[in-house]
Amino acid sequence: MATSGDPLPSWNDGTLKKDIIAYVEKVTKEGSPDFIPIENRIATFDNDGTLWAEKPYVQELFAFYRVKKMVEANPALAQKQPFKAVVEKDKTFFEKGGDKALIELVAATHTGMTEDEFEASAKEFFAGAQYPGKNVPLKQIRYQPQLELLNYLRANGFKTFIVTGGTVEVVRAISQDFYGIPKDQVVGTSFKYKFDDAKNAVLREPALDHFNDKEGKPVGIQLHIGQRPVFACGNEGGAGDLAMLRYSSGSKYPSFQLIVNHNDSIREYNYQEKDNLSLNTAAKYKYHVISMKDDWKKVFADK
Amino acid sequence: MATSGDPLPSWNDGTLKKDIIAYVEKVTKEGSPDFIPIENRIATFDNDGTLWAEKPYVQELFAFYRVKKMVEANPALAQKQPFKAVVEKDKTFFEKGGDKALIELVAATHTGMTEDEFEASAKEFFAGAQYPGKNVPLKQIRYQPQLELLNYLRANGFKTFIVTGGTVEVVRAISQDFYGIPKDQVVGTSFKYKFDDAKNAVLREPALDHFNDKEGKPVGIQLHIGQRPVFACGNEGGAGDLAMLRYSSGSKYPSFQLIVNHNDSIREYNYQEKDNLSLNTAAKYKYHVISMKDDWKKVFADK
Repeated sequence: MATSGDPLPSWNDGTLKKDIIAYVEKVTKEGSPDFIPIENRIATFDNDGTLWAEKPYVQELFAFYRVKKMVEANPALAQKQPFKAVVEKDKTFFEKGGDKALIELVAATHTGMTEDEFEASAKEFFAGAQYPGKNVPLKQIRYQPQLELLNYLRANGFKTFIVTGGTVEVVRAISQDFYGIPKDQVVGTSFKYKFDDAKNAVLREPALDHFNDKEGKPVGIQLHIGQRPVFACGNEGGAGDLAMLRYSSGSKYPSFQLIVNHNDSIREYNYQEKDNLSLNTAAKYKYHVISMKDDWKKVFADK
Repeated sequence: MATSGDPLPSWNDGTLKKDIIAYVEKVTKEGSPDFIPIENRIATFDNDGTLWAEKPYVQELFAFYRVKKMVEANPALAQKQPFKAVVEKDKTFFEKGGDKALIELVAATHTGMTEDEFEASAKEFFAGAQYPGKNVPLKQIRYQPQLELLNYLRANGFKTFIVTGGTVEVVRAISQDFYGIPKDQVVGTSFKYKFDDAKNAVLREPALDHFNDKEGKPVGIQLHIGQRPVFACGNEGGAGDLAMLRYSSGSKYPSFQLIVNHNDSIREYNYQEKDNLSLNTAAKYKYHVISMKDDWKKVFADK
């Protein structure tokens, strides 16, 4: 498909931008040996650190928001962990507890209600929340170049999915509005559900069903999408996307793997993994790396 | 959206056909109080007995096919259950064992391989299989009126999903070709998966992850689709779709529930539930019922 004008205006002209466009053009050219049928043009994007900023995680902000609401409704909770640690801003509780404490906090604040109640709560949060440090609405921490990339892929027949380590319904609350991605095209961490016929509602139970990070991502992709993505994009920072990128690289079609390198201390953040695993793996398997500093003309979306 | 000509030519003119068209017209009319935004036009269809015949289940035919292939490769299996029962056509083994024996058979024949190997096997099966009793390729046991209904809904902005009690990958092998439904819009019963980095493959493990029947259907819908369907269609015969229809009826938008009544002994089959639960529930909640005998001008698809 021919595109008129520059489909990626917030990307600096350079090798990476040229490579992305060359890939899309070759796999959509009918008759070409690299042609990918439209039903196999699956593109998957991580969310935190890939489509929007992740310092801090929006999921964490939402959990804190829920704590505030829950403690207002029931002040006794302020004496109970993990609520107590949040109310008292006790960072060591979460530093010591690691992932386990965070999951405990998410379970305590995200479950024990119907899906409809949860969705209303998430929508309320997103309507009012500001991003710490930047003091802008959450919509403005989306990366403008990635919004253009999503649009460009869709204009060329790709079906775009979010494959996030975050909990699926939090991201679904904004996926259409923020990214033009329908709810059913979001794959994420999920809790156990139960259908209650008397209430005619799906209840969220406080038990993790699927943790959609690292090796969990190919599993979530198989369960929800049912085929390997040909285009996959993640970020360095927590090595959460390597399994997804590797899975994508096993496609029988020509595929494209992309990693955001957070190296822009001025416009966004500069953070690297201690062992540099993501960037080393990218070098080993020849994945494409986005240097935020050099490849992006502009980082954040305007409004 | 205006449609020229009859969008449902294989449906007899009558109340039900009129009701379906009136529903679609009212919810797609902009400015109407019944208008449903396009991203909320979710339609879910059961598969066995709703989109194609279910006497016998195609899933069972596939399991038998797998047994044959597995025993050819390893003759010793013929002495081991549940393979033995299939090889010896021992119906009492499955009658006595019920759902448990069937799941055991499905697990034994559908797992222990990579997703890519499984998909190849399913494609091979569908290319050659004939439907017992009718001696036609499986593609010809699809219901022609339902194919028209799927097309009609899609032409009006509905996103169509299959929500099946069958295992998800078996249905995904044919969903695009048979129904115009992409793989990621199939929700079904699933096994546990595991990502193997060395093989760069998702492995199927012999343990059930989610049984997508009865109360499992709203759970599968929430997990995959993330919102209630406004249009849901199932069938009487095993009461498998009642929870899905009920869940759909709880939508905040105008919704439509539909049940196929298998009452056509001449063109298809005549079978009813002993307790008549599906049809009684339909009467109680005012779901629409398809009388196959009276509402369908034609039952099966041509080719």
